[in-house]
Amino acid sequence: MEFIEKYGPWAVVVGASEGLGAAFAENCASRGLNVALVARRASALEQVAGGLKQKYAVDTRQIIADAGKADFAQTLKRDLAGLEIGFMIFNAAAEPGGPFLRITIEDHMNNIQVNCIAPTQLTYWLGGEMVRRGRGGIVLVSSSAAHQGIPHWASYGAAKAYELILGEGLWDEFRDHGVTMAAYVVGSTATPNFLRNQEKLNLPFAGGVDPKDFPEDAPLPRSPAEVAANLFPQLESGPRLYSHPDDKAAYEASAQISRAELVARIGEASKIYFPAGLNELVG
Amino acid sequence: MEFIEKYGPWAVVVGASEGLGAAFAENCASRGLNVALVARRASALEQVAGGLKQKYAVDTRQIIADAGKADFAQTLKRDLAGLEIGFMIFNAAAEPGGPFLRITIEDHMNNIQVNCIAPTQLTYWLGGEMVRRGRGGIVLVSSSAAHQGIPHWASYGAAKAYELILGEGLWDEFRDHGVTMAAYVVGSTATPNFLRNQEKLNLPFAGGVDPKDFPEDAPLPRSPAEVAANLFPQLESGPRLYSHPDDKAAYEASAQISRAELVARIGEASKIYFPAGLNELVG
Repeated sequence: MEFIEKYGPWAVVVGASEGLGAAFAENCASRGLNVALVARRASALEQVAGGLKQKYAVDTRQIIADAGKADFAQTLKRDLAGLEIGFMIFNAAAEPGGPFLRITIEDHMNNIQVNCIAPTQLTYWLGGEMVRRGRGGIVLVSSSAAHQGIPHWASYGAAKAYELILGEGLWDEFRDHGVTMAAYVVGSTATPNFLRNQEKLNLPFAGGVDPKDFPEDAPLPRSPAEVAANLFPQLESGPRLYSHPDDKAAYEASAQISRAELVARIGEASKIYFPAGLNELVG
Repeated sequence: MEFIEKYGPWAVVVGASEGLGAAFAENCASRGLNVALVARRASALEQVAGGLKQKYAVDTRQIIADAGKADFAQTLKRDLAGLEIGFMIFNAAAEPGGPFLRITIEDHMNNIQVNCIAPTQLTYWLGGEMVRRGRGGIVLVSSSAAHQGIPHWASYGAAKAYELILGEGLWDEFRDHGVTMAAYVVGSTATPNFLRNQEKLNLPFAGGVDPKDFPEDAPLPRSPAEVAANLFPQLESGPRLYSHPDDKAAYEASAQISRAELVARIGEASKIYFPAGLNELVG
């Protein structure tokens, strides 16, 4: 079956304003799918949509909505009514960073809303329509942060683990009904958001990716274009897909060492972002 | 430092009405901690509290509260005001089972409230108090269901993965401040709830645990008393603790086989619980 027959006529890309989301949208459009783009910023969506229409002659919709709002799924249901959606990539993400106790509880709740509640609700709704139709596909974008506890991104890693394990379980439930489901484990990627954080914190990748300045064992961030493109050839290959074979190898190796060593090693690296730690809290 | 000096004077056990929670409470009381018991059913808590007072001469509190309610953490804050809580075991769990699309969306949201939101809010609050005090401990009870997608318990496994990875990350953040944090991976356990489900579904362990009737490769459910007792000797040994060495070995082995094989194998086993699958939906 052609891609468009199985996954068309419409794709929805949640979190599509730039970087990885925009690159996913481009990959959908290049395969002939119309694309509904969802994000918070109208101007950014306008730009992505304009590019897709011009380059691929597909139809687009722009939905301005915030995955952090409780009525997010309802908004999408309303704004996407009437479109036959055969493909969904859930790429929106909240990424609260810092010592757990210094992040606000509101940000921790937003993390759960964006990374757990919203993908569950959209998968329930769109997955139901796809199963009834007997075709379609859903990809939940997870992260290598899901494989073990991430000090200073503890609730983020937890929520990414939720998406990873949800996607894996549903792969088996949906495949008997012609619907592809996958969790996509994305490693370090040089998205605009990633680069802004590097800039803000004056870290090695600030101002762009210059491999000469990398810490020796830091994973090389890949380009959003590469990471998005790597999804499609393996789309139907199983519950958990990796953005690069190195990410798979890293997971398999990590499962063989002690959790204490693994988490402590990541904590050593993540500490440099937040040198004050909890000292302020304990006064 | 004695257990009570580090983790006293009060423990709170969330989800303490029976089975594993009651056994955790007993382990706390036997080490001299006063225990605040939290659950939905007053009569069950009354019984557990009565037993602890009589056997261990510790003080107890019973808090009737539902971890599925949005105001759960607020209720506990109010009802536990004035107690110095040095230890928390989060053992409450929602466990929605069935084909994902046939479970109600309300039950999927309850799963996130009980297994993600509630432990995050309580860990934020009590973890903050413990870090300020420079001592204490928190255990989030996870499950071997967190290690990979679980067809027919897809959102449950996902939420248990959230707890697992949250606990791992916070282990590193809290230990510099004298606070023990751990995720406890619990394998198959013959809790009253487990046995009720076996009864309802007419499965091998109905009516009690009789090893003769086990399917050959089914994991033997362990007793709640054994699983609860196994936590304490390893409490300070790292981010992820297992209820039995076999569970650790199973995790390490599973990380070496393909995700498709792993998840499909679990799907084969879990299908027997829900023979109708999604047929009703697509019929």
